[in-house]
Amino acid sequence: MLFILKKGADWSTLKEKISSSGASYRYLNLYGKELVVAWPDNLVETIVDPSVEMKVKPRRPFQLASNEWKSDPTIVDVKGVKIGDRKVVVAAGPCAVEDEEQLMTTAKEVKRAGASLLRGGAFKPRTSPYSFQGLGVKGLELLRRASDETGLPVVTEIMDPRDMEYFKKYADMLQIGARNAQNFDLLKEAGRSGMPVLLKRGMGNTAEEWILTAEYILLENNGSVVLCERGIRTFEKSTRFTIDIGGMVSAKLQTHLPICADPSHPAGKRELVHSLALAAVAAGADMLIVEVHPRPEKALSDSEQQLTPEQFSLLMQRIKALAEALGRTA
Amino acid sequence: MLFILKKGADWSTLKEKISSSGASYRYLNLYGKELVVAWPDNLVETIVDPSVEMKVKPRRPFQLASNEWKSDPTIVDVKGVKIGDRKVVVAAGPCAVEDEEQLMTTAKEVKRAGASLLRGGAFKPRTSPYSFQGLGVKGLELLRRASDETGLPVVTEIMDPRDMEYFKKYADMLQIGARNAQNFDLLKEAGRSGMPVLLKRGMGNTAEEWILTAEYILLENNGSVVLCERGIRTFEKSTRFTIDIGGMVSAKLQTHLPICADPSHPAGKRELVHSLALAAVAAGADMLIVEVHPRPEKALSDSEQQLTPEQFSLLMQRIKALAEALGRTA
Amino acid sequence: MLFILKKGADWSTLKEKISSSGASYRYLNLYGKELVVAWPDNLVETIVDPSVEMKVKPRRPFQLASNEWKSDPTIVDVKGVKIGDRKVVVAAGPCAVEDEEQLMTTAKEVKRAGASLLRGGAFKPRTSPYSFQGLGVKGLELLRRASDETGLPVVTEIMDPRDMEYFKKYADMLQIGARNAQNFDLLKEAGRSGMPVLLKRGMGNTAEEWILTAEYILLENNGSVVLCERGIRTFEKSTRFTIDIGGMVSAKLQTHLPICADPSHPAGKRELVHSLALAAVAAGADMLIVEVHPRPEKALSDSEQQLTPEQFSLLMQRIKALAEALGRTA
Amino acid sequence: MLFILKKGADWSTLKEKISSSGASYRYLNLYGKELVVAWPDNLVETIVDPSVEMKVKPRRPFQLASNEWKSDPTIVDVKGVKIGDRKVVVAAGPCAVEDEEQLMTTAKEVKRAGASLLRGGAFKPRTSPYSFQGLGVKGLELLRRASDETGLPVVTEIMDPRDMEYFKKYADMLQIGARNAQNFDLLKEAGRSGMPVLLKRGMGNTAEEWILTAEYILLENNGSVVLCERGIRTFEKSTRFTIDIGGMVSAKLQTHLPICADPSHPAGKRELVHSLALAAVAAGADMLIVEVHPRPEKALSDSEQQLTPEQFSLLMQRIKALAEALGRTA
Repeated sequence: MLFILKKGADWSTLKEKISSSGASYRYLNLYGKELVVAWPDNLVETIVDPSVEMKVKPRRPFQLASNEWKSDPTIVDVKGVKIGDRKVVVAAGPCAVEDEEQLMTTAKEVKRAGASLLRGGAFKPRTSPYSFQGLGVKGLELLRRASDETGLPVVTEIMDPRDMEYFKKYADMLQIGARNAQNFDLLKEAGRSGMPVLLKRGMGNTAEEWILTAEYILLENNGSVVLCERGIRTFEKSTRFTIDIGGMVSAKLQTHLPICADPSHPAGKRELVHSLALAAVAAGADMLIVEVHPRPEKALSDSEQQLTPEQFSLLMQRIKALAEALGRTA
Repeated sequence: MLFILKKGADWSTLKEKISSSGASYRYLNLYGKELVVAWPDNLVETIVDPSVEMKVKPRRPFQLASNEWKSDPTIVDVKGVKIGDRKVVVAAGPCAVEDEEQLMTTAKEVKRAGASLLRGGAFKPRTSPYSFQGLGVKGLELLRRASDETGLPVVTEIMDPRDMEYFKKYADMLQIGARNAQNFDLLKEAGRSGMPVLLKRGMGNTAEEWILTAEYILLENNGSVVLCERGIRTFEKSTRFTIDIGGMVSAKLQTHLPICADPSHPAGKRELVHSLALAAVAAGADMLIVEVHPRPEKALSDSEQQLTPEQFSLLMQRIKALAEALGRTA
Repeated sequence: MLFILKKGADWSTLKEKISSSGASYRYLNLYGKELVVAWPDNLVETIVDPSVEMKVKPRRPFQLASNEWKSDPTIVDVKGVKIGDRKVVVAAGPCAVEDEEQLMTTAKEVKRAGASLLRGGAFKPRTSPYSFQGLGVKGLELLRRASDETGLPVVTEIMDPRDMEYFKKYADMLQIGARNAQNFDLLKEAGRSGMPVLLKRGMGNTAEEWILTAEYILLENNGSVVLCERGIRTFEKSTRFTIDIGGMVSAKLQTHLPICADPSHPAGKRELVHSLALAAVAAGADMLIVEVHPRPEKALSDSEQQLTPEQFSLLMQRIKALAEALGRTA
Repeated sequence: MLFILKKGADWSTLKEKISSSGASYRYLNLYGKELVVAWPDNLVETIVDPSVEMKVKPRRPFQLASNEWKSDPTIVDVKGVKIGDRKVVVAAGPCAVEDEEQLMTTAKEVKRAGASLLRGGAFKPRTSPYSFQGLGVKGLELLRRASDETGLPVVTEIMDPRDMEYFKKYADMLQIGARNAQNFDLLKEAGRSGMPVLLKRGMGNTAEEWILTAEYILLENNGSVVLCERGIRTFEKSTRFTIDIGGMVSAKLQTHLPICADPSHPAGKRELVHSLALAAVAAGADMLIVEVHPRPEKALSDSEQQLTPEQFSLLMQRIKALAEALGRTA
């Protein structure tokens, strides 16, 4: 249950009423609104209080993420880059930061082609312990440097809550990866950090479960969440994962959060990336995150699916044309 | 193994060589080319013959459908409507033919909005025997009449090979539905009919298996096959099926056949149809097949997912804008 | 809605009432009971008639297959072999009938090991048109001969309703395969044939959809249906399909029909077959259908998953021990 | 690549050779054997050294978990309870620790019925932040007390590496849950703890990926890993998850690690738990973990799937009978 408070109202009596009902609650200040979320619903259903402007009972399992109380789309601001607005925002960069030259080259190339954000993994969740695990903090430092040089804010994946201090220092947007999508302690830390979060969908999660992972972050008083579809596990073998355009659109229709799509991981092969990227934009994605490597065939990870800078540049042109046809920009 | 024959060559010695190798073979005249397909490969690998212009050994399990021997895209002609060409072709109409008024109204509306083909089910494959099973031959007659009146060729589903005579009489394009996608005897009959075939992917089939169902038709000397993606079975619950844009693009990259997408069945809900349709076109679909009903809430089947004529008309406008941005028309 | 009639009652007034309600209905004589099934429910809800002993409104989409009106388990009799009784029935034999020697050898071996039914494919649904398609009618004749010689009744797959006369002549139990699981015209023919039916689950079908395919057969007044789980399509790659033990148990808990499991197809590899077979029996399967070939490595189909006669013999011993521990026999 | 060292050999020259090859490596003492694992293979392929007794190059992506170098089954010892031996070990207890009375009652009941380990969640990974999140450290304390009183060692889930000190103090076996199955930092900490680990399979992970998560633990010199199948995500709706018996058997055939099955979560409903448990044992599971609650209908989580003590007691009897038929005990 959401109690949206009157501007500047004293909510101490509301607090008392909720407390004495036995319900749990949390006071939040989200999107310029003060609100109290209380649960379970049945304990607080009859509560009224002069401090409350509006009481909303979303019919969905997620509350704060639902557009039932906030119908205007949320715009997430990453150092001035606005995600969820008219412009389709593109983040691009290597799967993993490998060395300074690789990163700098890529950063400059993707900037030239029109990317708005730099992506790159420093801490890498790898299926096998024998695969390249990333450069760690050193990789974060390189990302910071590349960002400072190009002006592109950095989005990069955090895997362990104990590393948060480094991410606060070096990154502009946290990425929660598919494999940690339901690592709830990490989600809570990401929420508490106050940083913008790019929240990937777990490969075995329904759209509803995905939105509920966002709810964990919002409930920490952090409204800067972008939902990112990156493909789910199905029986189809010609692609690495199955990009779930339908689930992505479902999420967009039920929440106020911006939606991102990652066409690289579901494709698994370079030649499919363009089509998946364009499909996602046509279906309403507000953001794309694309893997680009100066020499994909030599990449230490995801070698098959990273685009060359030339391929990325062509993709940006196609996205721009498409976005315009849809009444957006890119 | 494909033996592509020289124009007008006498292939009797080739025939003898293949026969005596113990291989199976079939002579075909497809896309203006005479060819002999022989299998298994290993028995015919060393065969050479003066009648052969080119010998092709596709590395894929499908041969005739592969673009390894035919790199130009196939255009399927349905009474003058060309599928696979620059124009994105849209088939529209009710899930099931219910009565003359319903069908005529819909046919006229979709024509006005810009559809090129009329769809509508007369024989309906229903999960439950207690659901409306369609009007049968009477439905086919109504479709013929609606087609004659509007000039839109008719595509409609055949379920039983014993009904073929009616489809030859009343329909312009056969549809093989998802539930009969691996009904191989029906596929062979569809091939033998010589009629253009809209071939849906089975909801539990990989893209490769789907293309192999086309191979059954092509091997009957019928090259007029359009592959239709309509959603696969996955764990996601917010949509009826998961439209597999990646598998669809994979199929397009490996074959010369035109690709259609059905946004209605995977959506399962009206409000998702537009986005899925646009995504499919952006990803390269040559055709769409969309369910439209004058009063969806009263439809005898698929009530949740059929568009109103107004919604369809708006969709056509959006498709046109998108197609143009992609260098196509609609 | 099910109207179970009093023994020998005149139901003409019931018929009139249902007719005039606008509902569809069918009179059936199943399991020694006369009943009228009428639909949709809402039209016949208020109908009462002296001919009716009991009126049952199953809450499930399937009616005749539900154990809400028939709580005793159905026993399907195939020429004296009782499926659904205390004994776990095992059908065994080659994937495909290849020649007389192969079939006779296998039939004798599986009989010696304790099988009760002979399986073998004459008409083969193959993913690729270039794979061995079966011996057709010739294969059916061989099966008949092997059956006559060993005394094992024959279960074999029908793919095309136009072949029914041959199956009536040569087979003892029809198999509907996974790829034709929702070929509703074939289901209806199988129902009309009056023959016992082994009904496989489609690889993309839910348990509920599977039971509804049985409903199509029962509605043709044929109650001799055995439901066969054979694995569904999932993302797991170490097996050919994922045997859905949970779905199988669900089906058993909701219906009165006997349940069979096919451990060979989901295994895809010989070394997994024993474990899957034992798991299915432990979970309550009434029947198993197992692929056995005298020389699996030379088999024309499913070479990887067929057991040798020795492996099958060992499996039968293990099944017997297990069945006894469960209070059954084998 | 695995270099298995001669007993007590000086491996300093091997170390040098590997170092200078540029390969990564780790020295381990696992299962009474000293070994060095080095990767990637190609850099160390030609290395020979007098300290090496045997060099093994597993053909699978996992090395230490593979039975290619260790063919005898591993037995994991949890305070005297041996998992992977002849006896089928059963862990039982509530989904979540709710209060002392609930836990003590359950612990005593499951002990009486024959369970060997006590399960119970103190830190609960919940899809929704509004669901009961567990008692945390307080729950761990209660588990310790229940364990001390009944003599049943405790297995309980850890979600956050920062809580490890509490688990070392209060728990006997760590559980890694499905949602953290690919939380690689947590896996590494679990490895470093030296405690036995019950490692659940992620609901979207293949069997191969699951075994690779064990590899992360083994590589930290911790060989006490039990692999736990708990159901995967599929399209089937009649169960909560699809227990993948085939994937479980595959894992058993490829590794030396003991295998556990959780029948409660895939069932999702009490009435399916018995059948899934028996199926898993028949297929070769070495251990079961079962949810039991004194009053399931009032449980704060998983209310639908927890067994009553009576149902659990009956299950134990059935497991015992089954285990004996398989040449095991329970």
